[in-house]
Amino acid sequence: MLKVGYIGLGLMGKPMALNLLKAGFPLMVHNRSRAAVEALCASGAQAGHSPSEVARWADVVITNLPDSPDVEAVVLGENGVLSRGHPGLIFIDHSTIKPASARKIAAHLTAAGIAALDAPVSGGQIGAINGTLTIMVGGEPEALERVRPVLEAEGKTITWIGPSGAGQIAKAANQIMVAAQMVAMGELLLLAQKAGADPVRVVEAIRGGAAQCWTLDVKPQRLFQGVRTPGFKARMQAKDLNIILETAREYGMPLPATAVNAQLFQAMLENGLGELDNSAVIAVLENLAGIHLVEPDRTEN
Amino acid sequence: MLKVGYIGLGLMGKPMALNLLKAGFPLMVHNRSRAAVEALCASGAQAGHSPSEVARWADVVITNLPDSPDVEAVVLGENGVLSRGHPGLIFIDHSTIKPASARKIAAHLTAAGIAALDAPVSGGQIGAINGTLTIMVGGEPEALERVRPVLEAEGKTITWIGPSGAGQIAKAANQIMVAAQMVAMGELLLLAQKAGADPVRVVEAIRGGAAQCWTLDVKPQRLFQGVRTPGFKARMQAKDLNIILETAREYGMPLPATAVNAQLFQAMLENGLGELDNSAVIAVLENLAGIHLVEPDRTEN
Repeated sequence: MLKVGYIGLGLMGKPMALNLLKAGFPLMVHNRSRAAVEALCASGAQAGHSPSEVARWADVVITNLPDSPDVEAVVLGENGVLSRGHPGLIFIDHSTIKPASARKIAAHLTAAGIAALDAPVSGGQIGAINGTLTIMVGGEPEALERVRPVLEAEGKTITWIGPSGAGQIAKAANQIMVAAQMVAMGELLLLAQKAGADPVRVVEAIRGGAAQCWTLDVKPQRLFQGVRTPGFKARMQAKDLNIILETAREYGMPLPATAVNAQLFQAMLENGLGELDNSAVIAVLENLAGIHLVEPDRTEN
Repeated sequence: MLKVGYIGLGLMGKPMALNLLKAGFPLMVHNRSRAAVEALCASGAQAGHSPSEVARWADVVITNLPDSPDVEAVVLGENGVLSRGHPGLIFIDHSTIKPASARKIAAHLTAAGIAALDAPVSGGQIGAINGTLTIMVGGEPEALERVRPVLEAEGKTITWIGPSGAGQIAKAANQIMVAAQMVAMGELLLLAQKAGADPVRVVEAIRGGAAQCWTLDVKPQRLFQGVRTPGFKARMQAKDLNIILETAREYGMPLPATAVNAQLFQAMLENGLGELDNSAVIAVLENLAGIHLVEPDRTEN
């Protein structure tokens, strides 16, 4: 069975790594903070002390990190994956980073005989825990086929999109839609409230029609209960939207609606709300509207 | 069985009226153009020559018209429903109109002993044909219970929202989400295309994840085939968005994302694209981006 090295045991990485252990893959883990490493080791993983140690031991190295600079440092930096990666090693990055950064990393690794797949995921922490993630893959299809059993332990829908960076483009596309739905949900809930129509009934009425979406299926009941904890952190959504706008500028693609949505998520950060769920973008709209969806003391801000 | 009068046999009204006939309701129909009336009469309906004639005959009068002035004219105007409506008559409006207009109509009818329900629908022409519409109802719950068998012949999910106008508020909420998804779909498809990631694969990858929605389930394959015919007409989506912005202004609710989406649908009208499907808002983004999703000769513009 393929020996898997896992670097980055955050909100997503930790449950995904656990699913690899459950599927029987020998696992070495590395993470900046020790608590998650110890939790994984208690479940049968071994600890790696640096990305290079993980890369030397493993057949497949997976990263799951916050942003482009983090992945570049872990792969290309001192004691990085590249420094001790052996030809035949396959590198998989589950982080959401700039497509241009994914292509740069892949170029360096490929030159050293290491195949690289950008494989960002969608489906949230729930999907990570249940192994039902959507995984969007860019890179060589042959490399994907070799690691498919690994990805199948982490997710349900695994789709090859195209060459290096294409997985990140698909993730950008995903985040364009998710951000649009989160903002639209906030706008429609507060309009209903201001106009005197019960937002709970409104959601019940519309979620089976043309407006149907995972967002309306899952998020409103949490908001109605005053629950705004992640889920998927607003600061990650804001980061993803900045990646999208930067990438779109690079390719000459105007995104008028996404630009507005990005500004609203940016406003969350300016208001110190970045650690909340992305659905909590409704808080920015509440500020604009001068009302609250539920009494503030019921909201876990 | 309740005798039903149906006024307005357009893209939505005609199949909905047919479903009432199939369910066995005695039906009198009225429409500005004759072709739809004749089609319904061939299936067993009788023709009414004015809204007042329909109102005198029926137990329930249904309207399904383009906009607020049309409904006001048919109900409150010369030879309108109100002029011959008898106490005990129930009026149902399936049109999408201003909540304020719905409340005004209801006030006039209620004063004459006629119950009024605003009951806009969602689910498109497919939903109208298959009888799977979502129906959002404002008005007296007792009146809704009396006409529920009628509504159940037209739709699947019937939800009481609140007093008069509340059905229209729910529909506004619905259209906020639908417009957001249509624009986001256009943006993400064209970004993928410009960035060299196959939009078909991108949609395949993301439609099962957090971005999941009816829009992504149904619309992209039509766009990939160059099909931009309605479905739901862009000029109706633009009208609905203008109603939403006007209503939001009335209630003091800023809608930054919906405002941008409304502008993009307005741009469709300025470009003579109002008769296309609402998913064809991608044409406006194509103009901004200087590319086409599919070759123009494959697009039914």
